[in-house]
Amino acid sequence: MTQVGEPQDPRSAVRRALLGLKHPKLEKRNFVELGMIPEVRLENRRVIVTLALPVRQTPAREQFEQMVKATASEACPGWPVEVAVRAMTPEERATFSVRAQGRGPGVGDRPAIQNVVAVMSGKGGVGKSSVAGLLACAARRRGLRVGILDADITGPSIPKLFGVHEHPGEGPGGIQPPETRTGIEVMSINLLLPDEDRPVIWRGPLIGRAIQQFWNDIAWGDLDVLIVDLPPGTSDAALTVMQSLPVHGIVLVTSPQDLAAMVVRKAAHMAEQMGVRLYGLVENMSHLLCPHCGRRIDVFGKSGAERIVQQCDVPLLGHIPLDPDLAAKCDHGEIEDYESGSFEAIAEEILEAIGRPHAEREAEVAVPGAAR
Amino acid sequence: MTQVGEPQDPRSAVRRALLGLKHPKLEKRNFVELGMIPEVRLENRRVIVTLALPVRQTPAREQFEQMVKATASEACPGWPVEVAVRAMTPEERATFSVRAQGRGPGVGDRPAIQNVVAVMSGKGGVGKSSVAGLLACAARRRGLRVGILDADITGPSIPKLFGVHEHPGEGPGGIQPPETRTGIEVMSINLLLPDEDRPVIWRGPLIGRAIQQFWNDIAWGDLDVLIVDLPPGTSDAALTVMQSLPVHGIVLVTSPQDLAAMVVRKAAHMAEQMGVRLYGLVENMSHLLCPHCGRRIDVFGKSGAERIVQQCDVPLLGHIPLDPDLAAKCDHGEIEDYESGSFEAIAEEILEAIGRPHAEREAEVAVPGAAR
Repeated sequence: MTQVGEPQDPRSAVRRALLGLKHPKLEKRNFVELGMIPEVRLENRRVIVTLALPVRQTPAREQFEQMVKATASEACPGWPVEVAVRAMTPEERATFSVRAQGRGPGVGDRPAIQNVVAVMSGKGGVGKSSVAGLLACAARRRGLRVGILDADITGPSIPKLFGVHEHPGEGPGGIQPPETRTGIEVMSINLLLPDEDRPVIWRGPLIGRAIQQFWNDIAWGDLDVLIVDLPPGTSDAALTVMQSLPVHGIVLVTSPQDLAAMVVRKAAHMAEQMGVRLYGLVENMSHLLCPHCGRRIDVFGKSGAERIVQQCDVPLLGHIPLDPDLAAKCDHGEIEDYESGSFEAIAEEILEAIGRPHAEREAEVAVPGAAR
Repeated sequence: MTQVGEPQDPRSAVRRALLGLKHPKLEKRNFVELGMIPEVRLENRRVIVTLALPVRQTPAREQFEQMVKATASEACPGWPVEVAVRAMTPEERATFSVRAQGRGPGVGDRPAIQNVVAVMSGKGGVGKSSVAGLLACAARRRGLRVGILDADITGPSIPKLFGVHEHPGEGPGGIQPPETRTGIEVMSINLLLPDEDRPVIWRGPLIGRAIQQFWNDIAWGDLDVLIVDLPPGTSDAALTVMQSLPVHGIVLVTSPQDLAAMVVRKAAHMAEQMGVRLYGLVENMSHLLCPHCGRRIDVFGKSGAERIVQQCDVPLLGHIPLDPDLAAKCDHGEIEDYESGSFEAIAEEILEAIGRPHAEREAEVAVPGAAR
C-alpha cells in the first residue's frame, strides 16, 4: 500500500493528508468528508486538487485554497500542486449540508461507526452482493466489528448469502440487527417481510426513506466498518446513500463484459460528481477454470477492467474468477465458509485503503469518523 | 401451442377467450386488458377465474360475473369454472383508470402498436436485455415490425447490443427512433446522451417521466410488437411501465442461482398484483459447454427455474445456455447476427403466446390492440 510521501502515487498521499484537514468552522469534519475535494488528479506531472465550495464567492475562498495547497504540497514533496476551485453542484451541496449538520459516524448519540463503505456497480448481476459479503467476512476474520446495510430494497440478497432469516428484535437503542454466525450485523428489508418472495413495490421516495431508516433507526453497535450493498442503477438508492450517509469510499464491481463496463463507468462518474472517493475496481466473473479439464474459459470475454481503470482513473483492486463453489455457498447461506486467495488480496487492499482499520488507525492522521 | 378448446391447458384457452370479452361501458377495452382478470388458475380440476372490480359493490357485479363465467365455460368444455370476485388493489385500480381512459395501442392518434411485451426479472445481470434483444431479432426474422423501448434509464444496454449510436431524428410525428441494421426501431436514454458513459442521476419521478415520454412522444411506426426492456427491481420503472403502458404480457428472465430465483419470484408476484399476465419464464445462463473439452459445467448451480414455475404458476419457456459467442456479439453490437436453436424455440413460444402475431391474428378473437 502507498504511504504518505511515497513518490510513486502522490494522489493517494494527497488524499490521505487532506483527510486530516479540518474545516475551520465545522471542526469535527474534514474537507474530504464534506465533499469539498471531489478530485485529486495528475496532469503533466502536476497534482491538481479540485476544491469545491458550497458558494463560489465565499470570503473564505482564499484561505481554503491556501490550506489545501499547503497540506497537499507537504504530502508529496517534489510534486507541484495546483488547486482548482469551483462551485459545488446541487448534488454536492446537498451532501455537504447533510454532513455539515453532523449526521455522520461517531457524532451525537449514534454509536460509533468508524467507516462506511459502499459496494456499487451501476450494473446488476455482476456480484456486488457477493463482494460486499466477502469483504464483510474478510474484515470479520481480521477481528473487525462489521455490519452490512442491504440498500437493495427491491432485490435484497444479503440475508440469503449469510443464511440469516430471523426478524430483527427490539432493543434499548432501537431495532437490533440480527447477527450472522461469525457475528456480522445485518440489516435488510427482507428481514422485515413476512415472506421473502413478497415484492416491495415502492417508488423512489419510499426506497430512499427505508435506507435512511436503516441508517438512523437501527441500533448498530460500535462498528469498525459498515458495508452498504447498493442496488444496480444511479437513481434513488445510490443518491440517498451518497447524500445521507457519511460514505467514506466506494468499491466498484464490474464483470468483463463491455456492456457491464459502460454502465460501471456511469457509476464511477456518479461517485465523482457526488464527491465520494473510489477505493478501486474489482472485476468479478473474470474467467472460469473448467472443473473437468482445468483449462481457462473467458465466459464473458476478455477483461474490460483496464478501460474502466484508465477512463475513470481508479485503481484496479483485482480479479475474482467465476467459481461454482462460491455460487453454491451463496445459495446455501454459507458465504462465511468461503475463502479464496484472490479475494483475500483484494480485501486486504480495500481494508488498507479504508485507512488502517482497527487499533493501528488511531495513531494515524485523522481519518473520517475516527473523531469521537 | 395450446388452442382454444384443447383440454390439456384450459387456462390459456380461458385467457384467450376472455381477451374477446369487451367491457360493456368501455367498448374498446376487454376485461383482461383492463386488469380485471388478474388470475386464471386450476384447483382440483376446476378453473378458477379471478375477477377484480375497481369498486367491490358495483351494481354491475353480477352481470360481469356471469359474462366472465359464460365466456370462460364456453372456452373449456368439460371443465367446471368458478369466478372469484374481489376488489382491485390500489395498484390495480391505477392501471385500470389509465387503460379505461383509452391510453392504449391503436387508440386516438397514436400509430397502432399491436402488442406491448415487457421483459422483466427483478434481478440484475441475468440477461434481460439479451433476451429482449434476441426476441426482437427472432420476431423481425419472421417479418414482424418490431420496436424496443429501453426502460432501463440508469443502466441502458439496448443500443450497445445492436450497435446503434446515432441520435434520434425529428420527424413529422415527433422524435424518430433510430433503426437497427435489420430494421428494428430502438429508443433508449443512451441515444440522447452526449456520451454513453454519462450517468443519469435521477430520482424515481424523472425515471417514470422519461419512460412515459418514450411511450407517448416517440414516433414509433406501426409495430406488431414493442418490446420493453425493464431494469432490475420492482420500483419506479416497472411500476410506470405496468401502470402507464398497455402491457399485454411479461417474459420473466432468471438465472439458475437460487439467489436470482428469490428476486424473480418477487417480480412474478408484482406482475400478478398489477394484473399483468406472465407469458412464461426463460432461464438464462443455465449451463456452459466447455469450449476445450465439450463437457457441461453448471456455473451457477442446478436450475432453480422449476421452483419458480411451481410457486408462481408460470410456464417454463426454456433454458438458454451461457455462450461466450453471445456475450461477444452483444459487446460488438452484433446481436442480430446471433442465432441459436434453443432461443428460436423460446421465441416461437413467446410469439405464439402473444397471440398469433401478424396477418393470422386479424381473423382470431379480438386481441388487445387489434381494434383500430
